[in-house]
Amino acid sequence: MPKKKIKSKNHNVGAPPGELYYSGSESNNDVKISLIQYNEATFSEQTFLDVDSMLKEVKPGLIKWINVDGINRLDIIEAVGKAYGIHPLTQEDIVHVDSRPKFEEYSRYVASILQMLYYDNGVRYEHLSIVLFEDTVISFQEPCGGDAFDVIRTRLRECKGRVRKMGPDYLAYALIDAVVDHYFYVTEELGEKIELLDEDILNNIHMNGIMHRIHELKREVLLTRKLIWPAREMILNMMRSDTELINETNSIYLRDVHDHINRVTETVDQYRETLNNIMEVHLANNANKMNEVMKALTVISAIFIPVTFIAGVYGMNFKFMPELETKYGYWITIGFMLALMIGMGVYFKRKKWW
Amino acid sequence: MPKKKIKSKNHNVGAPPGELYYSGSESNNDVKISLIQYNEATFSEQTFLDVDSMLKEVKPGLIKWINVDGINRLDIIEAVGKAYGIHPLTQEDIVHVDSRPKFEEYSRYVASILQMLYYDNGVRYEHLSIVLFEDTVISFQEPCGGDAFDVIRTRLRECKGRVRKMGPDYLAYALIDAVVDHYFYVTEELGEKIELLDEDILNNIHMNGIMHRIHELKREVLLTRKLIWPAREMILNMMRSDTELINETNSIYLRDVHDHINRVTETVDQYRETLNNIMEVHLANNANKMNEVMKALTVISAIFIPVTFIAGVYGMNFKFMPELETKYGYWITIGFMLALMIGMGVYFKRKKWW
Amino acid sequence: MPKKKIKSKNHNVGAPPGELYYSGSESNNDVKISLIQYNEATFSEQTFLDVDSMLKEVKPGLIKWINVDGINRLDIIEAVGKAYGIHPLTQEDIVHVDSRPKFEEYSRYVASILQMLYYDNGVRYEHLSIVLFEDTVISFQEPCGGDAFDVIRTRLRECKGRVRKMGPDYLAYALIDAVVDHYFYVTEELGEKIELLDEDILNNIHMNGIMHRIHELKREVLLTRKLIWPAREMILNMMRSDTELINETNSIYLRDVHDHINRVTETVDQYRETLNNIMEVHLANNANKMNEVMKALTVISAIFIPVTFIAGVYGMNFKFMPELETKYGYWITIGFMLALMIGMGVYFKRKKWW
Amino acid sequence: MPKKKIKSKNHNVGAPPGELYYSGSESNNDVKISLIQYNEATFSEQTFLDVDSMLKEVKPGLIKWINVDGINRLDIIEAVGKAYGIHPLTQEDIVHVDSRPKFEEYSRYVASILQMLYYDNGVRYEHLSIVLFEDTVISFQEPCGGDAFDVIRTRLRECKGRVRKMGPDYLAYALIDAVVDHYFYVTEELGEKIELLDEDILNNIHMNGIMHRIHELKREVLLTRKLIWPAREMILNMMRSDTELINETNSIYLRDVHDHINRVTETVDQYRETLNNIMEVHLANNANKMNEVMKALTVISAIFIPVTFIAGVYGMNFKFMPELETKYGYWITIGFMLALMIGMGVYFKRKKWW
Amino acid sequence: MPKKKIKSKNHNVGAPPGELYYSGSESNNDVKISLIQYNEATFSEQTFLDVDSMLKEVKPGLIKWINVDGINRLDIIEAVGKAYGIHPLTQEDIVHVDSRPKFEEYSRYVASILQMLYYDNGVRYEHLSIVLFEDTVISFQEPCGGDAFDVIRTRLRECKGRVRKMGPDYLAYALIDAVVDHYFYVTEELGEKIELLDEDILNNIHMNGIMHRIHELKREVLLTRKLIWPAREMILNMMRSDTELINETNSIYLRDVHDHINRVTETVDQYRETLNNIMEVHLANNANKMNEVMKALTVISAIFIPVTFIAGVYGMNFKFMPELETKYGYWITIGFMLALMIGMGVYFKRKKWW
Repeated sequence: MPKKKIKSKNHNVGAPPGELYYSGSESNNDVKISLIQYNEATFSEQTFLDVDSMLKEVKPGLIKWINVDGINRLDIIEAVGKAYGIHPLTQEDIVHVDSRPKFEEYSRYVASILQMLYYDNGVRYEHLSIVLFEDTVISFQEPCGGDAFDVIRTRLRECKGRVRKMGPDYLAYALIDAVVDHYFYVTEELGEKIELLDEDILNNIHMNGIMHRIHELKREVLLTRKLIWPAREMILNMMRSDTELINETNSIYLRDVHDHINRVTETVDQYRETLNNIMEVHLANNANKMNEVMKALTVISAIFIPVTFIAGVYGMNFKFMPELETKYGYWITIGFMLALMIGMGVYFKRKKWW
Repeated sequence: MPKKKIKSKNHNVGAPPGELYYSGSESNNDVKISLIQYNEATFSEQTFLDVDSMLKEVKPGLIKWINVDGINRLDIIEAVGKAYGIHPLTQEDIVHVDSRPKFEEYSRYVASILQMLYYDNGVRYEHLSIVLFEDTVISFQEPCGGDAFDVIRTRLRECKGRVRKMGPDYLAYALIDAVVDHYFYVTEELGEKIELLDEDILNNIHMNGIMHRIHELKREVLLTRKLIWPAREMILNMMRSDTELINETNSIYLRDVHDHINRVTETVDQYRETLNNIMEVHLANNANKMNEVMKALTVISAIFIPVTFIAGVYGMNFKFMPELETKYGYWITIGFMLALMIGMGVYFKRKKWW
Repeated sequence: MPKKKIKSKNHNVGAPPGELYYSGSESNNDVKISLIQYNEATFSEQTFLDVDSMLKEVKPGLIKWINVDGINRLDIIEAVGKAYGIHPLTQEDIVHVDSRPKFEEYSRYVASILQMLYYDNGVRYEHLSIVLFEDTVISFQEPCGGDAFDVIRTRLRECKGRVRKMGPDYLAYALIDAVVDHYFYVTEELGEKIELLDEDILNNIHMNGIMHRIHELKREVLLTRKLIWPAREMILNMMRSDTELINETNSIYLRDVHDHINRVTETVDQYRETLNNIMEVHLANNANKMNEVMKALTVISAIFIPVTFIAGVYGMNFKFMPELETKYGYWITIGFMLALMIGMGVYFKRKKWW
Repeated sequence: MPKKKIKSKNHNVGAPPGELYYSGSESNNDVKISLIQYNEATFSEQTFLDVDSMLKEVKPGLIKWINVDGINRLDIIEAVGKAYGIHPLTQEDIVHVDSRPKFEEYSRYVASILQMLYYDNGVRYEHLSIVLFEDTVISFQEPCGGDAFDVIRTRLRECKGRVRKMGPDYLAYALIDAVVDHYFYVTEELGEKIELLDEDILNNIHMNGIMHRIHELKREVLLTRKLIWPAREMILNMMRSDTELINETNSIYLRDVHDHINRVTETVDQYRETLNNIMEVHLANNANKMNEVMKALTVISAIFIPVTFIAGVYGMNFKFMPELETKYGYWITIGFMLALMIGMGVYFKRKKWW
Repeated sequence: MPKKKIKSKNHNVGAPPGELYYSGSESNNDVKISLIQYNEATFSEQTFLDVDSMLKEVKPGLIKWINVDGINRLDIIEAVGKAYGIHPLTQEDIVHVDSRPKFEEYSRYVASILQMLYYDNGVRYEHLSIVLFEDTVISFQEPCGGDAFDVIRTRLRECKGRVRKMGPDYLAYALIDAVVDHYFYVTEELGEKIELLDEDILNNIHMNGIMHRIHELKREVLLTRKLIWPAREMILNMMRSDTELINETNSIYLRDVHDHINRVTETVDQYRETLNNIMEVHLANNANKMNEVMKALTVISAIFIPVTFIAGVYGMNFKFMPELETKYGYWITIGFMLALMIGMGVYFKRKKWW
């Protein structure tokens, strides 16, 4: 994923709908397919490199979680799609790394498309899709994001929490919850950077690159916001859906996720406004400092210019300049010049001009 | 609670939902449990250090208010939760000090999660939860917030107002009302600070740190807003709820609380805009003052530079400079220079350049 | 009422709901109670100082308008409240001068709480409450606002307009209409001040205090907005209410009031934006004027500094400076200096630097 | 209508509702009443100066369009109102030139109040009312707006388009459509002025009055917006109305008008943002130009000040200054000064300081 | 289409509704009419220059796509309209190149009016109309936009994708989808320009014209936004429509288009904010650079002015100036002046004034 995410790539523009096109940047061919089958009593975990051998291992009566790690191998996506009857449009969304988070109901399944955020020298994201069938959950992800789901895998394996006792809808919920929980890492990271920035400004240090730091953070907050807002809408749609695939009693968990994502969006909005405030303070500080310098320097000029004029006057070569002949003319002039300079200095000081 | 509340802590990210994690900063182990039982005729008040001994004292037929003062002892929260059948997700919200205000209905109870605000050298908040059962109200709070509920305790004890005559729903309402009433203290405190700032700007004093004062106040107004907005939504949800636990006739009181919180949010929004106005005035004032200074100083330069040039001319050492030989050359030159300076001064004055 | 209305007072925070607390600043004890009884044929008007003697005069079969002039005597409010069965929460709203405009339905009456605005060296407001019963209208107001209702009193007395022929709901409407009509005075006053400001800026006069005038007007527009918005909501609620106390056929009049208040809010919003525009123009003007001055002054320096240098050169005391010995050296130098100055002046002029 | 429309006049504030008050500035007494009667086959057009003679000419079975040209003769409005049963509140809206656009349904008629905009050295508007009865349309307008309806009159007379074949509702629609079409003229005029402004800024000409031109245009866009927004709402209300006076099949034409007014409002909003952009560019340009000038001038000072100092040094009159005695001292000094000036000039040039 | 699209043309203002007026700038008379007839098995493609000969070729039982390439020949539009019963208002929208995107249902057809965007030295757009009948799709377009539909034509011809197997509603969807896909090209182009701008600002190059580049991009983003927003609304209306002409099962494809256009609008909104951020950084950079220059130059003045004064003092011609007679007076003075200059330089450096 490129660092600057202003432009988005859409190379499959013009292709017929449902034609798969992988828009990401992976080129690795090793797409791993893992199959976890469990119920409250049993648990098995297997890894495959192709779809057919995986399909052979699927056992009825168990809850199945198929995780496809890598979405650049379109043949694998299509094979899974064909085996499970996933609509071509859904398949297109699964492989299109820039599609908007969305929740869609089909007759046999519901699909949640969303992005996982992480922070690595800037806000990064990965494309994720979770498809929920009657007894199966299929998740598709770009490879590096594996860690978000590891928590769930461990919970399944060690039978921690509720997840082994519940249906596939709870598993789907748990996966989405894990993703939304990751959003907090990103906002925390952004929050720390903003706090650091704020302190640097209060202490007036590192003044040079601050505008660029603010710009960079604003851009990241903007990107985060753009990524999270539709995810929130997606979860809302999921909550309101009356699909039979999601058990009524599990809606309470979705409500919880919705609450989390609301908190994230509020935090991001707060960051946005905080960054604007910080920028205002920074600009005002800068202008202030500049003003101080200019005032001090201009005061120096203003004090010396009149006396320099006087010196110039007595530097004139007129033949008849009576003062020049007097005995104390020099000392009187020097005295007057000093008095004038001190007087102006005091006057400016009193007027708080420096 | 830290002073700068830009970043929020979420250390239980990744944990299974419903797993309790205390995210606050208390480490004191002395969690006090108080049990108040009353009806219109009787009133008793007891304090315990553990849940079991408290549960033994609970008498049927009375309205019970259990207040848990301190939410860092997860074992106590779990014991209460188990005894009263509080859902793990609710328990999680009770101990998670950064959860958003919300109102949630469960089959046997309704839960209101909110924050109490107070002002102590900055806007501070405490996490509060009020769980309403058929004949019991359980409230959970971080320790220092005890005083908000003291008012209610006194009213119960002294049988003031309506509270002893009404059901547990009225008690829950009274607790929420007490919390919302506290919001006014915070907005008053902020309002006073803003007024002080406004006066300082009108009188042009303390100009140095003003930008930081504005920034600090903006941040506090922003934080207050972020905390109060979801509380408003919470109370609206509570009003609209059709739970049987809240008596229809008491909805009028909720309407009153909703009205209060509306007033608070409007005040906070007004503060926000006022602060923006104040900042604009301050920046304009600053620029104005700077302009005045620069103009005055530059006028001095502009007046003296031409005459200094003239003096320079007659300071030249050319052999043949007829003016130097004339008798009144010096006086004429001096006169011309003075006239020029006065002329420029008058011209600049007329053009209002200083 | 204080001039600067940034902060609002809420001293009854923490008190039980329904406990009366007068939050205004009147201390006069002379609360006047006036009783007007009328139907199409008859009209009587009486004034009392206590509630009991007033109640004795109430005659059945007539429409009764009780106006309580002054809300600082809580005993009187309570007596009226008791006699007519006004809910303690309504009573609280009646005496609490900072409560938000609202419309509330109770079983026996409907209550409209609102503020009357007037302009007296700044936007001022008074607290007003209108309670409508089946055959009675009770209005409560702070004393100085009497004139708003005088129009209605005169119309009743002289049997002008429709008001004597209609029921008490029309009277209540007429009172609210009189209040909303007063809002126009305030917006007119603000509009005049804004127009004056605008002209002063176009004519570049009174430049000094303009930023403070803008600030002051912005604050007043902000306050007006804050006061009028909930009033609009109140009237909307009143329109939508299905209470039997308000006759269906009178809803057309409410629609008219709603229309008026809409016009007021639109005007206030327009003022707000106009003030922002004015401020932008003012700041740009100021910067422009400053720029002109600085440019002119700097041009003077730039023209004289090079020639002063040349004069300095020929003021040096080197023994061997051939130019000094030449016959026309002085005149050539003077000529060159003049040419340089004129050349620079023309160049700067052409570049439009002054 | 005054040019500066910041303030609005509301002299009938305090009057009983329904009391007519003409708030415009016409004083001409010649109110023309025209009566057009038509069906698909026949067409007649007559003009009257009083209502009674007009009423005598009204024939049953034809569609009647009564146009009252001038609304300052309250007696005429009242006579028409009485003859056709127009509610006093509607009459009030008809003569009150500043009332908001609105659509109101009464039992026997529906009334559309709106403003016609035209551009004559600024945005101007006229008050218009169209009242639709079962077989009659009555329109009221301020005199100068006659041309907007001329198009319709011609179409009726020459039997062009659909209007002769359709009912009175289509006529009412056609009148409103003619008014909304006029809005485009205003936006076109504003658009041309904005484009001119934009070009002037790109070409850096007429820089002086630009801020005032921007201000003036912003004000006009603001006014246009304020006038058009409620008109849009009015048309929406008309579309949604289920009155029997408007034929279902004609709602398609209203949809078209609604579409037009939507386009106007979007254009106005675009103008608003464009003006803000233009202002930003203008301010940045101005600052830029100022910076260039100041830098150039300051560079001149910076180059000459050091060498002037050197000249000053050798202008000192110390007895023992060995350099003064050397043969090439003068030339060396001159050379050094030139080298210094050129060096500084090159250095500043390289740093892009001028 | 002109480059600067601030103003829109509306020359048919005042014409009766439904009267055709071509508001574009084409004058070519060669309007091509292409007729494609297909079902899953057969496909034929013909081109005509007049409507009648085209109508003769229409065969029942096939899906017909009539594409009218060029909308300036009103007679052709009217002939098509008459043959297919297209309402005059729809015909008006078809030829009016500035009409808002909209979706309208009539009894026999539904019409989608929208704009195709492309980027050619600025955002350009073309007017498009798609009318869907029971077994026919008629599309009208301005000539240069042919390429957007070429993709569909190829897919039909080569029987690629789903389009040959589906009904005319799918064809209409495919056409709209092709148009919306083109929006991505425009946003990509804008995105690239914005990224380039951003890099230039980070690298501080091409500083001169940057404000105009920002202005130009802002204007294009604004125009794009204005064009795309109503298109989004149009698609939403199409989705929500319950017309029988669009098959329920195809609504999933509309959902996909809606999703795409949502992504486009979000991207455009992000661009808008990014441009604002970029402008802020640019202005701050500019101010910063200016400040640096001014500070450096002013420091030079401040350092040399005091010593120049000292030199001036010893250049005075007083008879009695004892220092002038001393042996080392000159050297002491020179040393003092150097020390003063270095001291000031160090002091200013330490204060970070340069």
